[in-house]
Amino acid sequence: MAKSELFRQLSVQLPAHRYPIYIGSKCLSDVDLLHRHVASRQVLIVSNETIAPLYLHYLLDAFKSFQCDTVVLPDGEAYKNQHHLFKIYNALINHQHHRDTTLIALGGGVIGDITGFAAATYQRGVRLIQLPTSLLAQVDASVGGKTAINLPHSKNMIGSFYQPHAVIIDMDTLASLPMREYRSGMAEIIKYSLLAGGDFLTVLQGILNRGIASSSHETMANLIAESCKIKMAIVEQDERETGQRALLNLGHTVAHALEAYTSFEVWRHGEAVGIGLFCAALLSYQLGYMQHSDLLLIDGLLKAAGLPRRIPKAIDLHRLHALIRQDKKIQDQQLRFVLIKAPGDCFVVDSLTSSALQNALDGAVEEV
Amino acid sequence: MAKSELFRQLSVQLPAHRYPIYIGSKCLSDVDLLHRHVASRQVLIVSNETIAPLYLHYLLDAFKSFQCDTVVLPDGEAYKNQHHLFKIYNALINHQHHRDTTLIALGGGVIGDITGFAAATYQRGVRLIQLPTSLLAQVDASVGGKTAINLPHSKNMIGSFYQPHAVIIDMDTLASLPMREYRSGMAEIIKYSLLAGGDFLTVLQGILNRGIASSSHETMANLIAESCKIKMAIVEQDERETGQRALLNLGHTVAHALEAYTSFEVWRHGEAVGIGLFCAALLSYQLGYMQHSDLLLIDGLLKAAGLPRRIPKAIDLHRLHALIRQDKKIQDQQLRFVLIKAPGDCFVVDSLTSSALQNALDGAVEEV
Repeated sequence: MAKSELFRQLSVQLPAHRYPIYIGSKCLSDVDLLHRHVASRQVLIVSNETIAPLYLHYLLDAFKSFQCDTVVLPDGEAYKNQHHLFKIYNALINHQHHRDTTLIALGGGVIGDITGFAAATYQRGVRLIQLPTSLLAQVDASVGGKTAINLPHSKNMIGSFYQPHAVIIDMDTLASLPMREYRSGMAEIIKYSLLAGGDFLTVLQGILNRGIASSSHETMANLIAESCKIKMAIVEQDERETGQRALLNLGHTVAHALEAYTSFEVWRHGEAVGIGLFCAALLSYQLGYMQHSDLLLIDGLLKAAGLPRRIPKAIDLHRLHALIRQDKKIQDQQLRFVLIKAPGDCFVVDSLTSSALQNALDGAVEEV
Repeated sequence: MAKSELFRQLSVQLPAHRYPIYIGSKCLSDVDLLHRHVASRQVLIVSNETIAPLYLHYLLDAFKSFQCDTVVLPDGEAYKNQHHLFKIYNALINHQHHRDTTLIALGGGVIGDITGFAAATYQRGVRLIQLPTSLLAQVDASVGGKTAINLPHSKNMIGSFYQPHAVIIDMDTLASLPMREYRSGMAEIIKYSLLAGGDFLTVLQGILNRGIASSSHETMANLIAESCKIKMAIVEQDERETGQRALLNLGHTVAHALEAYTSFEVWRHGEAVGIGLFCAALLSYQLGYMQHSDLLLIDGLLKAAGLPRRIPKAIDLHRLHALIRQDKKIQDQQLRFVLIKAPGDCFVVDSLTSSALQNALDGAVEEV
């Protein structure tokens, strides 16, 4: 029986729940590892039309002696909606999945989010294993337990906090990842480097300057593990986003509005985060919190990762601004926003003024 | 400003959450009490077409200086579905409710369940105040944090565990409750008396023998408070139904199947529980766990409460049996069932045989 090569193993420890993150190679053909976190003889695998042809056969093989059902959704954020959520529910009902069944999410962030929400709510909660196949999902969705679907123009508006029983990251799946997706994941890693600063930022700078395509499996496994650890340190303090966890929204307030504005059709999530991080940096600089040299450093990181950093001229800034004010981070009409003093020193302001935000958006528009 | 008369106040204490249950009179006109558990200036009240004309004006009055939106659903279990859940989500979105909004459920169990699920999942969780207006919701839905919607033929199949910030039980709302609903609530109180036995059972027998219509507000407040306390004692040990909590399903496995069989159109939930409790008692007796005198005692309690106790002849027992096997309490193909040794001494069997169940169903069919 095939064995995986595990580079790193982390343990996420929350007040009421603990689960492992495995980071390795050949994990998808490690039957022991895949069986370890399944409780009964039923599993339902959810994947998408891009990922399923590449990797689903490994899982079908591993669970061939189980009742193993599959739901394959179209690929894309636009499909993370009510209609496809009920496709998953209906598969669970039609194949009589019981309360001890296990849902397995094989795919990127969209598959992880919608499968996670289905697992959180089917029979008030069943087992969940995340097998994230995109760099973005590996660094971002492995920790935190956020699950969701979108409503029209409202990203992640319906969801819940629900922790997986295990996260298995098979580095081999990155080989099939399109470069644009790879860069999109890098945007989140850059976010973690701005939250943590220090050695992690220095290591990341080196990797980006050498070119990300040349990184080894082990280098990437370390980047992923360290990103997960930065997120874990924040989430373990604050599972339900009442305080510290808001820091993880760095770059995301503007990013979500850009995605909603364009109906999730123009940018990959991480690309929107690239622009959002630049906006947060520019705003921090304009308000006098951050040095100009750090603004250049951040812009340089995003550039080296090949990410977009400016708001296209075609975007109507007043509509974008209105969308930002509809974001979930609004508290009692006040706009919360994560700002940067320096890498490793980010903070949350509870009531950003409209004019300060407008200035930053104006300044972030691309020059032609 | 009007003050309520509080008969009892309980505090539900869970590992991560604590909330009060207020039981009193004139609570709906106690503005201070209603404001106490709201955090921002936004509330959304969900009610139904029966209850709203009677009591909604009290809340509109109490929250007249707030952004106070309302969703009024049709009355009945058949409307606790995806369509009406999304009506609530859409009201929240269209009126731009933020993460610090408060949902207020004004109605019976159906309104509590669907509003609770909306609160659990809108923006991954917002504040929730339960104002249960039926006896059944007051004794059953006040404690436990179960929220849900139905799928066709699958009651409560989608849901989550989500605790309210407060439960406010206004006894005055019982005055408008139809007798059939009142009896339906009594079925759950009888269930608690079988779980607890002892003094509570003796007191309940006295009340039922004198006729429930003649009970004072204070007597009923005590019955409700004691029922909540019995449930609290079980739930506080086991928030997510992994062990002890399964006892609360006494009578419910057969009840849920009867409700699903008849598309929720024949019985009130408590009426189905009446039949379910008799089936559980008969099964316990047939398997040799329970004395015949206790079977008669339980049958007598149900009769004194005016509840149905037998399966109508028109029900196809094979179809009913099949529906029971689709219930959520199935674990790895084994049927869990709550049995009774004596009042105060109930227990869970993990793998009830089909033939034992069939015998009890056969024996519980009405004689003509």
